[in-house]
Amino acid sequence: MSWNSFGRVLRFTTWGESHGPAIGAVVDGCPPGVALSEADIQPWLDRRRPGTSRFTTQRREPDAVRILSGVFEGRTTGTPISLLIDNVDQRSRDYGEVEKAYRPGHADYAYDAKYGLRDHRGGGRSSARETASRVAAGAVARLVVPGVRIRGWVEAIGGDAVDPARFDDAEIDRNPFFCPDAAAAARWETLVDGARMAGSSLGAVVACEATGVPAGWGAPLYAKLDAELAAACMGINAVKGIEIGDGFAAATLSGEANADPMRPGPDGPAFLANHAGGIAGGISTGQPIRIRVAFKPTSSILTPVATVTRGGEATSIATRGRHDPCVGIRGVPVVEAMVALVLADQALLHRAQCGDRAQGTPVDLAR
Amino acid sequence: MSWNSFGRVLRFTTWGESHGPAIGAVVDGCPPGVALSEADIQPWLDRRRPGTSRFTTQRREPDAVRILSGVFEGRTTGTPISLLIDNVDQRSRDYGEVEKAYRPGHADYAYDAKYGLRDHRGGGRSSARETASRVAAGAVARLVVPGVRIRGWVEAIGGDAVDPARFDDAEIDRNPFFCPDAAAAARWETLVDGARMAGSSLGAVVACEATGVPAGWGAPLYAKLDAELAAACMGINAVKGIEIGDGFAAATLSGEANADPMRPGPDGPAFLANHAGGIAGGISTGQPIRIRVAFKPTSSILTPVATVTRGGEATSIATRGRHDPCVGIRGVPVVEAMVALVLADQALLHRAQCGDRAQGTPVDLAR
Amino acid sequence: MSWNSFGRVLRFTTWGESHGPAIGAVVDGCPPGVALSEADIQPWLDRRRPGTSRFTTQRREPDAVRILSGVFEGRTTGTPISLLIDNVDQRSRDYGEVEKAYRPGHADYAYDAKYGLRDHRGGGRSSARETASRVAAGAVARLVVPGVRIRGWVEAIGGDAVDPARFDDAEIDRNPFFCPDAAAAARWETLVDGARMAGSSLGAVVACEATGVPAGWGAPLYAKLDAELAAACMGINAVKGIEIGDGFAAATLSGEANADPMRPGPDGPAFLANHAGGIAGGISTGQPIRIRVAFKPTSSILTPVATVTRGGEATSIATRGRHDPCVGIRGVPVVEAMVALVLADQALLHRAQCGDRAQGTPVDLAR
Amino acid sequence: MSWNSFGRVLRFTTWGESHGPAIGAVVDGCPPGVALSEADIQPWLDRRRPGTSRFTTQRREPDAVRILSGVFEGRTTGTPISLLIDNVDQRSRDYGEVEKAYRPGHADYAYDAKYGLRDHRGGGRSSARETASRVAAGAVARLVVPGVRIRGWVEAIGGDAVDPARFDDAEIDRNPFFCPDAAAAARWETLVDGARMAGSSLGAVVACEATGVPAGWGAPLYAKLDAELAAACMGINAVKGIEIGDGFAAATLSGEANADPMRPGPDGPAFLANHAGGIAGGISTGQPIRIRVAFKPTSSILTPVATVTRGGEATSIATRGRHDPCVGIRGVPVVEAMVALVLADQALLHRAQCGDRAQGTPVDLAR
Repeated sequence: MSWNSFGRVLRFTTWGESHGPAIGAVVDGCPPGVALSEADIQPWLDRRRPGTSRFTTQRREPDAVRILSGVFEGRTTGTPISLLIDNVDQRSRDYGEVEKAYRPGHADYAYDAKYGLRDHRGGGRSSARETASRVAAGAVARLVVPGVRIRGWVEAIGGDAVDPARFDDAEIDRNPFFCPDAAAAARWETLVDGARMAGSSLGAVVACEATGVPAGWGAPLYAKLDAELAAACMGINAVKGIEIGDGFAAATLSGEANADPMRPGPDGPAFLANHAGGIAGGISTGQPIRIRVAFKPTSSILTPVATVTRGGEATSIATRGRHDPCVGIRGVPVVEAMVALVLADQALLHRAQCGDRAQGTPVDLAR
Repeated sequence: MSWNSFGRVLRFTTWGESHGPAIGAVVDGCPPGVALSEADIQPWLDRRRPGTSRFTTQRREPDAVRILSGVFEGRTTGTPISLLIDNVDQRSRDYGEVEKAYRPGHADYAYDAKYGLRDHRGGGRSSARETASRVAAGAVARLVVPGVRIRGWVEAIGGDAVDPARFDDAEIDRNPFFCPDAAAAARWETLVDGARMAGSSLGAVVACEATGVPAGWGAPLYAKLDAELAAACMGINAVKGIEIGDGFAAATLSGEANADPMRPGPDGPAFLANHAGGIAGGISTGQPIRIRVAFKPTSSILTPVATVTRGGEATSIATRGRHDPCVGIRGVPVVEAMVALVLADQALLHRAQCGDRAQGTPVDLAR
Repeated sequence: MSWNSFGRVLRFTTWGESHGPAIGAVVDGCPPGVALSEADIQPWLDRRRPGTSRFTTQRREPDAVRILSGVFEGRTTGTPISLLIDNVDQRSRDYGEVEKAYRPGHADYAYDAKYGLRDHRGGGRSSARETASRVAAGAVARLVVPGVRIRGWVEAIGGDAVDPARFDDAEIDRNPFFCPDAAAAARWETLVDGARMAGSSLGAVVACEATGVPAGWGAPLYAKLDAELAAACMGINAVKGIEIGDGFAAATLSGEANADPMRPGPDGPAFLANHAGGIAGGISTGQPIRIRVAFKPTSSILTPVATVTRGGEATSIATRGRHDPCVGIRGVPVVEAMVALVLADQALLHRAQCGDRAQGTPVDLAR
Repeated sequence: MSWNSFGRVLRFTTWGESHGPAIGAVVDGCPPGVALSEADIQPWLDRRRPGTSRFTTQRREPDAVRILSGVFEGRTTGTPISLLIDNVDQRSRDYGEVEKAYRPGHADYAYDAKYGLRDHRGGGRSSARETASRVAAGAVARLVVPGVRIRGWVEAIGGDAVDPARFDDAEIDRNPFFCPDAAAAARWETLVDGARMAGSSLGAVVACEATGVPAGWGAPLYAKLDAELAAACMGINAVKGIEIGDGFAAATLSGEANADPMRPGPDGPAFLANHAGGIAGGISTGQPIRIRVAFKPTSSILTPVATVTRGGEATSIATRGRHDPCVGIRGVPVVEAMVALVLADQALLHRAQCGDRAQGTPVDLAR
């Protein structure tokens, strides 16, 4: 079943294919009175925009967003916000091979098996181009929780990781890899260039941290903040793994090593560690929220791979067209956007259920 | 916001606390005519039942399920199925310390921060006892997709992993660890005994494989089958990481190494590898679906840890009460249940959208 | 598709059949800290309870509710509240005829057509007994919006309406018909007795008013407060019509006759009329919310009606068993409950989206 | 809370304001392989289009729809279908008065009370212009259930009803009122002209019938087909009442008069009456589905009405701008569209839950 909406009270729906006339998102449930114009969204789209270095696809898209509804005199009205981005640089002729045979690792075969037909041009709906819609929606979400800072970076490419001791936030925006470690960024130039020229591609790990999230957002169990973030990020193209806090490393620890001891602090407890990634019992603790997301390597590669045609005959495919040699790099603004959308949604949900809790007064929404 | 329902058309809702009178689940949307009695559910609950070895909590619960609705003369009627399990072995007096101070790593502080109060007895709603409701609901889901076999096991405890070369499916049910490797199971006896006697606990990795899933279940993007499974498993208590197929390892690979090459097969393509874990573009490919789930160590431990009281004063806490030294072990039937619930839901959703596709005829649901 | 949940953030799910062991509801999303015990729910169930006069079914059910979860030391914890009501007076042997042939106007044939089987005992899931679960859930909802008063009554039975000039709120609880007009109540004794003794039944109109609802609850368009109330009430057994404010009478008016003129008032506008039933553009205006709900006559009657058997043969059916001669009477507490559930849900939703609006400050949920 | 999506598996979301650059809808969950182009949608939009007679608003909108996604080589792909309609004839200067004071009966005050601001130009989001998006989405839904014929008409304007004995289906498309009775249509010319020239407006009742719906669509209780239709239609601007089958008239009947007796028929039962409007127990019976919908008179009228300004001062308002003298007339294609959307959604839901029922075989979706 096609399912292109996300969120519980702050919801968004995306639409559009790689080589259609446009793509877009509709954001519903945004609080009214938020100052919003295209200028609030465009910088985030520009971070994700393709064609800005040789390490991303060479497709040239301005990714200029237009707000078609939901804003009046510079403020949100509380009604749905329609965001539209034109596609201007389609080159569908590159995709003749993809029409006839399935790229291993790509969505091609699965779409055909499910739907019986597919828009093969540029990957159609399964193209990473769709993520521009998420980034646009995420820019709106950021404005709903302005006290939260959401910051992502690439932690590893092809297994080559940054050195945590060299982490420099300012470095992230200085290189084409969103890499916080200048030395790693230098190595990655060689690494990604090599993959690109070999007609290959590389996987990557993206990390993201959200600071300024107060204790109390999220839910026990079926909508654990961990689970919301996992669903949000695992829904991004090419993502195959997600960790909250220590993630799989926590599975190697003892209980006392994994505990985040507490000490009295100025505003509630002060924590002496953050193995939990800022979430306990599915609810934020006030610590920074930390996640890691695994992107597989781009499956559209020039290196030939054995496959079958739509008719079921053996062949091999080498994918022409323009592709990111490492789709995880541009995943950074996308992961950030999804985190923003989850947190803004949870902020509103927390206010819905617990908005009057602090006062300790009887609940009376009707006064 | 409390959110205790899961699923899109096959939905279930759970309720209940560790030390309340009972716990339960309501399963809605089950197809009619499915043969169902308590005997179809009880064996799965028995697999998860506590107190069956010294490696789990010593709480003695028969976990006898009763079906209160939705079944008539041995068959489901299509109306909601209410499943109830009595709590019979509460010992709330053990939890005096938990009332006063927060267990680091546990939900205690987060619940207080969110709700302003909590049922501290046995962890209340945040207790792993809740997972019995999931296992009961999952037993119903299995009957909706009888052609699918869902099989979980423990892959590692405290960082000590099974040897894949020694994997023996039959071994899984022969030891108290759901361990497919007899040698590892023997080591884990010592390991878990050690942790238990030291007042400590251990994390674990649970793996799960679903075979018999046809190509075509799932959805692109926001409800990628990967994302549905991630949300389902990350919503289990103590889970902090999830991988589909190669997961984080895929992020270290090149595109050609991560591709799953295809060859013509008897029923559609035959795959030469399964890095994707049976899911491409969010949709099943017909290969086995493979996931890995990281459980952190139990946070209720006898080893004292620094913490604060509800009043904000420094203290340390050593949790008495009865706890699993490795909560991941009993996570196996829980992960299996959640996988079953996701797959049954997706099977129905696929039939909803694409039920008439195979025929190649014009859609006409009204004939 | 079976769908037994209702609500958007304050949600509830009901389960249970007329002649099963019990029925119940799970209420999720209730704010924490609300004082709640069985004593808060039981009086509302007692108002709906059968067997209290000769004008309702003679089935004797104590309808004693038990709270199984979600409450700790007398207060809601924010986790799901499970409410259970035992069935104690089933007499399934009365229903042999219903098993074999379809009651015209009843759900019998439709259930068989949809599901291929049905629990015929007492109507199974389609029995009005299910409405006890709604009333229990509604009692919780009332506590979420204590400033709102929700008051229902029967406005007409079998076409015989109350005289608005004789409306007396205190009279509603003094007669077995929830009738606000003592003269009409006297007439209805004869009317309903006549139908009962003739083996017939009667339809009714239930009216309901909610006062104390502030301006601003609800939503434009797809979740207009009108639409939420319509869905809620039309989901009650036997309901076939719903009006908000003047309803169908508004369709006979001119624009100026239907306008509700405004004058400056102490707290926002004072309205000079209430044709709109307190809702404009789908959003509450601060005026009393007024609805009318049409209940068809009970379709289980002793008077024989032509029908067919499950095997498709012609027959006629006279329904034995115990039935309300006018199901609309006991519809009053049910309509009230559904109105309470809608309003509490909308109160929380309004707080989610617009909770900080009044302050006129930049949105910052994270402070 | 803003809520602009509708449907459970076939879902759509609309966006856009009366005087913004465009309006649109995103339809998600449509089955793949359905032949679809703009030419399938445009005729339905043309039926609703304003400015085609003097009995509707004089705003001139071509309402040309563009499909921006979800269709490839003339067939739906199963991915979201984005439909966009440009606004070309805004005249915002007409609305100066509406900015300053509230139109009684209109959404103006309620929006301000909820959101603190509103786009007053042409009614913004609350304008009936939004219904073009519904009609476009409904045109897609019709193609999902091609065996169903959905036919609406105006049954009464300002209390002047058609004569059922003179009902002529062919007449509906011959006059500007969607009136099935030529004599009534002639009377309505005078009636509506009179209201228009007097600066007044009129309410209307729209009826709609769906034939070709098989028995078994819908659900018991909370998503009764009655309730789905009620929510769908009550969500249309200006609607204040809805009846299924006999509706409020059923409340005046006895049980035997309201029963729809059954006789053996060629394909299941043959019914001797249709008081139930084709729905029993919330599920379709195979009879024609019949509903009636009450539209209040347009609240934007030239006749001055007492009101208050945004600042709270007494004034009166006479609404200039271009408005339908009877908004119910153009409600016909809108009601039809909403009925189509509900039925297509229910068709898919029925297939999800009960798709394999007819075969009487064990459920096995995985084979």
